[in-house]
Amino acid sequence: MSDPIGICVLGHGVVGGGVRRILREQGGMILERTGLTFDLRHVVVRDLSKHAQHADLPLTTDAEKAIADPAVKVVVELMGGTGRAGELVEKALRAGKAVVTANKSLLAARGRELFALARRNKTCIAFEASCGGGIPIIQSMMQGLVANRIDDLVGIVNGTCNFILTKMTKNGWGYDQALAEAQRAGFAEADPTMDVSGRDAAQKLSLLSGLAFDVSVRESDIHVEGIDTLQEIDIRFARELGYVIKLLAIASRSGQNQQGNLSLRVHPTLVHKNDVLAEVSGSFNAISVYGSALGHALFYGRGAGQMPTASAVVADLVSVGMGIAQRLFDQVRIFAEGVPAARMLDFEQLQSRYYLRLTARDEPGVIARVTRILGEHGISLSAILQHETNDTNLVPVVITTHLAREGAVRSALEEIDRLGVVQPPTMRLRIIDPPKEFGTGN
Amino acid sequence: MSDPIGICVLGHGVVGGGVRRILREQGGMILERTGLTFDLRHVVVRDLSKHAQHADLPLTTDAEKAIADPAVKVVVELMGGTGRAGELVEKALRAGKAVVTANKSLLAARGRELFALARRNKTCIAFEASCGGGIPIIQSMMQGLVANRIDDLVGIVNGTCNFILTKMTKNGWGYDQALAEAQRAGFAEADPTMDVSGRDAAQKLSLLSGLAFDVSVRESDIHVEGIDTLQEIDIRFARELGYVIKLLAIASRSGQNQQGNLSLRVHPTLVHKNDVLAEVSGSFNAISVYGSALGHALFYGRGAGQMPTASAVVADLVSVGMGIAQRLFDQVRIFAEGVPAARMLDFEQLQSRYYLRLTARDEPGVIARVTRILGEHGISLSAILQHETNDTNLVPVVITTHLAREGAVRSALEEIDRLGVVQPPTMRLRIIDPPKEFGTGN
Repeated sequence: MSDPIGICVLGHGVVGGGVRRILREQGGMILERTGLTFDLRHVVVRDLSKHAQHADLPLTTDAEKAIADPAVKVVVELMGGTGRAGELVEKALRAGKAVVTANKSLLAARGRELFALARRNKTCIAFEASCGGGIPIIQSMMQGLVANRIDDLVGIVNGTCNFILTKMTKNGWGYDQALAEAQRAGFAEADPTMDVSGRDAAQKLSLLSGLAFDVSVRESDIHVEGIDTLQEIDIRFARELGYVIKLLAIASRSGQNQQGNLSLRVHPTLVHKNDVLAEVSGSFNAISVYGSALGHALFYGRGAGQMPTASAVVADLVSVGMGIAQRLFDQVRIFAEGVPAARMLDFEQLQSRYYLRLTARDEPGVIARVTRILGEHGISLSAILQHETNDTNLVPVVITTHLAREGAVRSALEEIDRLGVVQPPTMRLRIIDPPKEFGTGN
Repeated sequence: MSDPIGICVLGHGVVGGGVRRILREQGGMILERTGLTFDLRHVVVRDLSKHAQHADLPLTTDAEKAIADPAVKVVVELMGGTGRAGELVEKALRAGKAVVTANKSLLAARGRELFALARRNKTCIAFEASCGGGIPIIQSMMQGLVANRIDDLVGIVNGTCNFILTKMTKNGWGYDQALAEAQRAGFAEADPTMDVSGRDAAQKLSLLSGLAFDVSVRESDIHVEGIDTLQEIDIRFARELGYVIKLLAIASRSGQNQQGNLSLRVHPTLVHKNDVLAEVSGSFNAISVYGSALGHALFYGRGAGQMPTASAVVADLVSVGMGIAQRLFDQVRIFAEGVPAARMLDFEQLQSRYYLRLTARDEPGVIARVTRILGEHGISLSAILQHETNDTNLVPVVITTHLAREGAVRSALEEIDRLGVVQPPTMRLRIIDPPKEFGTGN
């Protein structure tokens, strides 16, 4: 048994409470497993008077002094945001302290600079909790899958959106009702923009795809569409066609070599109901990875919440304590100097299958005109669906396509929406084919 | 970039070929990711004349000399079996070489002794490839989940059995036909006993449950039933009831504390069709873990085969090269001195739900007599299923139960089979309830 490892926690929120609970309840088990003990020396808050009920905690407002405490070896940043959190992480790194963080926004915005700072100060940043909550996806990418060239990564990485979509799908609710329930249940914030816009998922994808493809990815490399424009009718039509709508974060390498262009995107996607991702409900996350040797692997678990996130934070503390985090950080290529920027596929060149929902006026020949335009753009149809309706003015018509180019679909829809026989805008969603290997029987 | 790490591979089989292919095709990528290169110095075979077509390989029959080569830092044992493989692993450890192995039989049989030998010689054994093929389950248990007390672990860990059961389920085949197809496709050996008897799964469970519960588990602690007595009719009835039959490896801790008794078992199990494990097809593996902080997590991927297993072997080589394997091994508590033996739950005390298929003679009052006996043993019924049939002599009757004690069910069936109104033996399978958290919508 070695000396206790001094910790300073920045922020006194939900996850911090989870970390303390694990260290209190499972400290003995962690000691037996790893020989390590931890000493929570400081909890840095902004305003002591707001935390009067936590007299048992080593609360302080003096972050600088807490970080500088020579007994503090690891600074756990759980404040969130990029401003003050960034300043304090910088201070910690300059003081040679290891940093454990769940803050994907900070890494997405300033990762390159902070990683370089950590290297200059011979310390490390551990960030398992930044993606997939308690799922050990970062360590799996860096260690277990290290022998694999990764070709595709497809994930449900935002629990808020998945909770909302699950409620819309299973309860037949509208978006607003599902969002309200997510807020009531603590799965969405009062301002849900970061989650429902897809941005949180994009920040996670920038980290995961950097690890997968050994490149430096900027958040702006990622095409992002949120779930806030989804309608119940699309969820119903999708189900009728055998699909479930999920917000997916997708990273693909085109071609078979290390230098292929990448396509990185976050958008609502039709997932075949037999795809295991279709079964991922509520606030759970799941990440499918396709490796050159491993084939398809999937990592599933709670992607957010107090204890799952705390599980990843404590795993990082142990990794720091055992010296593993430092060894991995010395090698990690995301945000590293000399690592190439991601070479992005022109989004217009993306090949996908599409779901189109037109609102057609009840005139003869509408379908003929629409499908002719699609044909002229080289887009071939997979299915078409129109129900009998009492409303004889506007009729929803759903078309799914075979593989088509994003640019061709965009041009065709512009033309279709100008026809005057459909009410714009036509809804356009992408369809992802089932994982190449799942459920093949082999 | 450091000096190449010298490797000696024991055995020249399928997985060894996969390891060489990864080092050849992805060596540049691995160097970029980790700074490590590997030098394959010796491939030890029994009979050079059988490998004449591999003149490019550093083949040798002199294992002792190859292991003793001072340039060899890691010995990769891919021979299988416990005899010669055990001898050579011993030699490697005595010479202070790290050992990477996929050999769960060897570890199940002699793990305690070999781990102690590694410790005495200040080296390590890495064994990611021994469970779950390419799925990084060992490292996830040791690192990512280190902060979690594990309460339950449920896995599909034998690809051969899962392939056979998938064929029986999806194609309506009998056991013999499915086994023959598995052999033809290379998923089952000529003598499939090790797999279909459940023993391979039990050996893996002994490793996984040791890691999960911080105890020393012997293979004989595990209750094992194979798939070789399963009949098509049970697969059909299970489907009618909403279940799929899978060979599961199950480890559970009773009660809420670290000292609870364990139940460890491998047997064909009825899994609810909505359980994600029901969707795991063919040679894929999946392991569900329930942790105190993480909740439910699932790891899915190819559990066998050349490249997935080689993926895990090379991951272990990298882990040895980075010094991570040694640090983890120094801490790992399975097979360690001073680690308590697993305290097993008396199997008769197991609580489970059951599927019973009786072959009833067509006489009045059979069901009444059978259900009365079940009632007398405190076993309450959940469902009962009897179809109209042309065969008026023998009629299959399926009964599912609520939670009951294993011992009560055994006694009741002995009594029922003595009644004279059913044709013994009555088929008895266990039912597992859906994972506590999966698909809850939260």
